[in-house]
Amino acid sequence: MAVRVYVEFAAKNAFTAVKRRDLIIVVDVLRCSSSIVSAFANGVKAVIPTETLKEAYELREQRADHLLAGERKGRKLKGFDLGNSPLEFVQEVVEGRTVIMTTTSGTAALVRCRRAEHVLVGAFLNAEAAAKKAAEIAQRNGVNVSFVLAGEKGLFPLEDFLCAGAIASKFPTARFNFSDEALAAVLGFERVKDALSEYVKKSRHARHLTELGFERDIEFSCKLNHFGLVPVYRDGKVTLMR
Amino acid sequence: MAVRVYVEFAAKNAFTAVKRRDLIIVVDVLRCSSSIVSAFANGVKAVIPTETLKEAYELREQRADHLLAGERKGRKLKGFDLGNSPLEFVQEVVEGRTVIMTTTSGTAALVRCRRAEHVLVGAFLNAEAAAKKAAEIAQRNGVNVSFVLAGEKGLFPLEDFLCAGAIASKFPTARFNFSDEALAAVLGFERVKDALSEYVKKSRHARHLTELGFERDIEFSCKLNHFGLVPVYRDGKVTLMR
Repeated sequence: MAVRVYVEFAAKNAFTAVKRRDLIIVVDVLRCSSSIVSAFANGVKAVIPTETLKEAYELREQRADHLLAGERKGRKLKGFDLGNSPLEFVQEVVEGRTVIMTTTSGTAALVRCRRAEHVLVGAFLNAEAAAKKAAEIAQRNGVNVSFVLAGEKGLFPLEDFLCAGAIASKFPTARFNFSDEALAAVLGFERVKDALSEYVKKSRHARHLTELGFERDIEFSCKLNHFGLVPVYRDGKVTLMR
Repeated sequence: MAVRVYVEFAAKNAFTAVKRRDLIIVVDVLRCSSSIVSAFANGVKAVIPTETLKEAYELREQRADHLLAGERKGRKLKGFDLGNSPLEFVQEVVEGRTVIMTTTSGTAALVRCRRAEHVLVGAFLNAEAAAKKAAEIAQRNGVNVSFVLAGEKGLFPLEDFLCAGAIASKFPTARFNFSDEALAAVLGFERVKDALSEYVKKSRHARHLTELGFERDIEFSCKLNHFGLVPVYRDGKVTLMR
């Protein structure tokens, strides 16, 4: 049977995908997904996403050996070891460590998917690997695939839409059945793939990050298929799929 | 001041655009918008959209000289003069006449916009004319522009998304400020513009219409800028903007 591919344009609709029992790919290119993928590329042991700042601080109090990372309004927070820049998650800092992470949209989107059996973290950085892994799991388990885009305040995020397209464009089309949203995302990605960062920079969130001085994060997050790994969220924790 | 461009992916969100006091372009490429544009190209005097079948029948009882047009589940209805095929609205049938029209999505979307001051009917058939007219009115009146896509059952309609992109791509970009949705729509359209009907046919609704035998309607509805006219909905009636 063909695998259906859906795209939920807002994280608040994650429950729809969970209810369908879909494999979920959470996408927050700027910057949570990209940071998590980078963290694993640099040897992080696990990432614990939390929805609220309070949970993050409490968890850190219990586990002083964990690193604390994330942002609110784009900026690193008081008492935090790391912000939410994928470039901060370097080997010297994160290797072998567990990172408690809380961001405005991305970690909240992950937490909303906690009742789903298969939740992957997708970014441009690992688009092809995420597609391959998602296709494999979906076909093996006979489940459909939903992208959950983690835009802020329920807004449609262009960068995440294009990333869903980047990933979906690598699905074996003969055995996949695309919803209109998924078709649209693939078309958008195909239009911009040769100048990805140029178009991602036009998005609302990228313009905001540029104002805050995070242009390098955008450039880095647009490196397509830079890493071949797929972080998986399960039992409250993101780890690397083996 | 720049004109903001929004896209409401579902007609149920029309009220958001109405509340913002935006100029609204209602898009239902398959097939209501295309039928209305064709009707005006062939000399129809006015189109009165109704949300329900009941209203349509009642109105017709009061005005026996009006034509009755529309569909449910894609098919022409009992006692109707016309279905919802843009190819049916030929000059010999519609010239000088008023048509009462009720369709599953398009006319309901129009009616939902009844409290907006400026409501245009947009299709591939009149994309460039609609863009020009919308830009002119928005700039003159200092209002923003919203596309309201008239997909069925709240679903995202690929064909209408691409059409919003076709229209938005003709806005004077220097004076227009695109939301992420509008940017995405333009990218999608740019990707497919040289093979429009090929991609439109992949949409959920086009596949359904193809099953019903309406493939010629899809081909015709994809004729980009075939007509230079812009129907306007005001005071419960669609007429031609002079």
